[in-house]
Amino acid sequence: MDFAALLAQTKPPKRQTVAVAAAEDSVVLQTLVDAYKEGIADAVLCGDETRIREIAQAKGIDISPFAIMHAADEKKAAAAAVAAVREGKADMLMKGLLQTSSLLKAVLDKEHGLRGSGLISHVAVTYSPILDRTLFLSDGGMITYPDLAAKAKIIDNAVLAAKGMGVVLPKVAVLAAVETVNPDMQPTIDAAALTQMNRRGQIKGCIVDGPLAMDVALSPYAAEHKGIKSEVAGYADILIFPNIEAGNCALKIFTCAANGIFGGVVMGAAAPIVLSSRGDSEQGKLFSIACAGKIAMNN
Amino acid sequence: MDFAALLAQTKPPKRQTVAVAAAEDSVVLQTLVDAYKEGIADAVLCGDETRIREIAQAKGIDISPFAIMHAADEKKAAAAAVAAVREGKADMLMKGLLQTSSLLKAVLDKEHGLRGSGLISHVAVTYSPILDRTLFLSDGGMITYPDLAAKAKIIDNAVLAAKGMGVVLPKVAVLAAVETVNPDMQPTIDAAALTQMNRRGQIKGCIVDGPLAMDVALSPYAAEHKGIKSEVAGYADILIFPNIEAGNCALKIFTCAANGIFGGVVMGAAAPIVLSSRGDSEQGKLFSIACAGKIAMNN
Repeated sequence: MDFAALLAQTKPPKRQTVAVAAAEDSVVLQTLVDAYKEGIADAVLCGDETRIREIAQAKGIDISPFAIMHAADEKKAAAAAVAAVREGKADMLMKGLLQTSSLLKAVLDKEHGLRGSGLISHVAVTYSPILDRTLFLSDGGMITYPDLAAKAKIIDNAVLAAKGMGVVLPKVAVLAAVETVNPDMQPTIDAAALTQMNRRGQIKGCIVDGPLAMDVALSPYAAEHKGIKSEVAGYADILIFPNIEAGNCALKIFTCAANGIFGGVVMGAAAPIVLSSRGDSEQGKLFSIACAGKIAMNN
Repeated sequence: MDFAALLAQTKPPKRQTVAVAAAEDSVVLQTLVDAYKEGIADAVLCGDETRIREIAQAKGIDISPFAIMHAADEKKAAAAAVAAVREGKADMLMKGLLQTSSLLKAVLDKEHGLRGSGLISHVAVTYSPILDRTLFLSDGGMITYPDLAAKAKIIDNAVLAAKGMGVVLPKVAVLAAVETVNPDMQPTIDAAALTQMNRRGQIKGCIVDGPLAMDVALSPYAAEHKGIKSEVAGYADILIFPNIEAGNCALKIFTCAANGIFGGVVMGAAAPIVLSSRGDSEQGKLFSIACAGKIAMNN
C-alpha cells in the first residue's frame, strides 16, 4: 500500500477540527493546509494573530479556511486551544511552536484542562510496507521507565488509539527479550502480570500476551518455530515496550531502515493530541493528523 | 546487494575451521556442509561419533570432509571443541546440541578454557538492504542490564568484531532515546561517560559518540535536522544498546520487518563463537559462520 492509499484508509470520513496551540510557525501552517486539502482536518489557530498572518503571507500559505483565536503568549495559546476542545469547537489538539511541557500543563489543568485516564502517553502509529500492517508502539516518546501500574495505563491508551483507528479487538504484545518469565528480568515479570490482569478483566477491550520477543510478536513463523501458543504471537497490533529506549529504537528503525510511515498521537487526555516534531517527514505529519482525527471521531 | 554478494564479500578468503560442540544435530550438520560448499569453513565435529554418523546417514548429509572427535557427553564435547581451538586445530567455536551455559562453562574454564577480554557478549551482525550497510548491534542476546564497566567491554568486543570484518575505524553510537544528557535517564549518562572514555584512550580503536537516538545514529538527514555535530551520527557502524530489550527488539525488527540478513557472533573469548539458534534462517546461519570465520582470521 502506498502513502496515498494509506492516507485514504486512515483519514476520518469527514474533516475533524484541530485546535493548534501557538500556530505561529510556517511548517505547522503548511501541514494544516495540506491536511485541509486532503479532507482530513479543519483548524482553529490559537496564537499571536498578527504573527500568524505575517508568516502565512511571507510563505504564501493560504490560511483563509481556518479560524484564528488570538492569544498573546504561549501559555494563553495553550489555554485557548484546550478551551476550544473543551467547548466542542475542536475535536483534537495539536502542538505548535511551544514547549511540549507548556501544552501538557494546560491539558492537565484541574479546572480548565482536558484530563482523561490519568496517564498521558505517546502512541506511535507505524505502517510497515514490508509487513503490510499498521502497528501501534508505546511508549517510545514520553514515559521513560514505566512501572506495572503505568504499563497498564499505557496499554489502555494504546488500545483506545487502535480501536479508534478501526482495530476491533487489538492484540497486545508485551515485549521482552525472551518468552519465558525470568526472575532476573523485570520486563518479563511485568509482562506476565499484565497478561493476567487482562484475563481478570483489569485491562479490557484487547487480548494481552507477554513476555514475547519482537520476532514472535511480529512473525507467525517465528512463533510457530519457537512453539509459542498465543492468540497474539505473530499478529500483534500493539507493541508495548518495557522502557523508552527499546520503544524509541524500535520506532526509529521502522522509519529509518524499514521504509515505514510513522505518525504519533498522544493519548490519555480527553482528546487526542498531535505532537509532530519538525524532524518528522511531511507524510508523517499528515499521517499523524489523520490518525488523531480518526481516533477523535471514534472515541 | 543480494545474499550471494553479501556472503561473497563477508566470507574469509580461505576456509577457517570451526570446532563444533555436540554436533549430533541434523540442522547443524547441514549448515556445516553448506558452509563447506561455500568455501567458508571446515569443521571438527565434537560429540557422540556413532550418533553423528547415524544422523548424517539418515538425513543424507555428506560429512566426509569433516574430522570427528568422539566425546561421550555434552560436557566432554564442549571441552573437546574448546581444546581443538586451544591447540590450533580450529579457529573458532560453534554451539551444537547443548545448552549455551554448558559451552560457556568450558570456554571460561580457568585452566583449559579460552578466556579472553573478561566479558563474553553477543554481537549481532545485520546487513540492511534498505540502508545498504552492515551494522553491528550489541548486546541484544546475552548481557541483560550492563553497567558502565560492562558497556565499555561490550564496545571493545563489538569493535574487535567490526575490525575483524574489515571496518578500519568503527564508528560507535551509544544509543538512548534522546541526544542530550538527562540526569533521570541513566543510559544518557553512561553514553556521555563512554564517549569521554574513548577520548581519554580508555576505549580504543574506534570513535564513540552518545547519547544518540537511533534515527540520528542511522540517518545523516536526521542528524543534520537535529543539528547534532558528531563524527558518528548518520554513519554508525556499531550500535550499543542500554539494555537487552532495546537490543533484542532492534535486531529482530531488522530481520522481521526490514528484510535484513542477521548473523550473530559471541565475542570476548579467545576465539569467536557461533551460537546460531534453530530459529535462524538458513542464510543467517551461513552468514554467522562467515562472519566468525572472517573475524577469526583477522584477530
